Amino acid sequence: MQKLEKLYEGKAKKLFATDDPDVLWVEYMNQATAGNGAKKAQISGKGSLNNRITAVIFDLLKARGVDSHFIKPVSETEQLVRRMDMFPLEIIMRNTAAGSFAKRYGVTEGTPLKQPILEFCVKDDALGDPFINNDGLLALDIVTEDELAEISAQARAVNAALLDIFSKIGIQLVDFKIEEGRDSQGHILLADEITPDTCRLWHIADDGQTVEHLDKDLFRRDLGDIIPAYEQILERLEQLAEVEGIERS
Amino acid sequence: MQKLEKLYEGKAKKLFATDDPDVLWVEYMNQATAGNGAKKAQISGKGSLNNRITAVIFDLLKARGVDSHFIKPVSETEQLVRRMDMFPLEIIMRNTAAGSFAKRYGVTEGTPLKQPILEFCVKDDALGDPFINNDGLLALDIVTEDELAEISAQARAVNAALLDIFSKIGIQLVDFKIEEGRDSQGHILLADEITPDTCRLWHIADDGQTVEHLDKDLFRRDLGDIIPAYEQILERLEQLAEVEGIERS
Repeated sequence: MQKLEKLYEGKAKKLFATDDPDVLWVEYMNQATAGNGAKKAQISGKGSLNNRITAVIFDLLKARGVDSHFIKPVSETEQLVRRMDMFPLEIIMRNTAAGSFAKRYGVTEGTPLKQPILEFCVKDDALGDPFINNDGLLALDIVTEDELAEISAQARAVNAALLDIFSKIGIQLVDFKIEEGRDSQGHILLADEITPDTCRLWHIADDGQTVEHLDKDLFRRDLGDIIPAYEQILERLEQLAEVEGIERS
Repeated sequence: MQKLEKLYEGKAKKLFATDDPDVLWVEYMNQATAGNGAKKAQISGKGSLNNRITAVIFDLLKARGVDSHFIKPVSETEQLVRRMDMFPLEIIMRNTAAGSFAKRYGVTEGTPLKQPILEFCVKDDALGDPFINNDGLLALDIVTEDELAEISAQARAVNAALLDIFSKIGIQLVDFKIEEGRDSQGHILLADEITPDTCRLWHIADDGQTVEHLDKDLFRRDLGDIIPAYEQILERLEQLAEVEGIERS
């Protein structure tokens, strides 16, 4: 497999073509951003940690019947993925009120939700990734009814599987963002990444109250160094994969 | 029927108790506000026009099988309505992209939508009436699943009936906001008002393009006097009610 020309550079990843038209080469960068790029830093070691975390999560998901675009890692900071035609959506699942949701509705962060919430935002930096409901997605022709049903079902399945994974390593999965796309055979599939950049992962202290943030909120909110937190997440996930004896890509 | 103590004063209406615990006395004020009260004015004649417009619309809806809280007018600016336990929701139906929707998604105002859009906002001035999706309404326990289904079905039925009414008087119904509540028998019902304060009503000029606003956007956007526009709407609606020979409350 050959790494060819750069196709895209996002806030945390670069995408390269390969000699296989169905395969992309992803490079995880050390860059951290928050607030739609308003805050930015280089954090040594982040790219490697996220490349390894998303790899083990995609493997743990696969073992639970949830497929993704992930093929295999090719270096400390790089992995191969299936090339997808992406939906222009941020797909958010929430289990506990936090972040923008808590602020928007005046709910205390940490309030449990009566049921998981699936939210969509249109991926559009200039518009600030606006929140949209199902009617809006259909009326603006962003997805068809069938696509919406499939994406929604997959998002809820990813949430169920991730809740299982994170509960097994003593972590509260508060919320997360995924993206979905269509592969060259037309299958709708989980894509992008699942890392502490895209999830809120809380460790609840022995007092049952104090939240230890093990995710990008450390950076967003200037709460501390992300690296030890991301290392802890990686270590626990790799232990789980070993205990479960799952096949590693 | 006796008008008793004032229960509530909103931006455009005052509500009074009556000697019947199931009946409220509504007084339409001349006050116009926009931008969550940021812009405010007294416009002589507005209260009377809105009292009469919402009355004829509720009558036209009733003739189309859509019931509401409306009982009957009692003066130029006052009407009796059934007392309702209100859902804390702004219920918005959109047929054409306009206003906050057009801005939020970067769509040109006037773009037709592929299908009507039902949107909910939580009624909360301090939070700026935040937009919420169905999952959010259920997870925050704002409505039950049954209530959400009933409210949604009624909103879509109101839209279908209003589209019919306004098309018959040569007006494009762009979008509108309603509220719903539960009466003392537990029935979910259309409440609040339907007026040019709460609807976008466009007259399209003979060139097929130029929009004449016959609604509160005249005030919001400083486009002109609302009174002649509201008078035109009332006149056409009353003519329609007469042509259709419907019973007036």
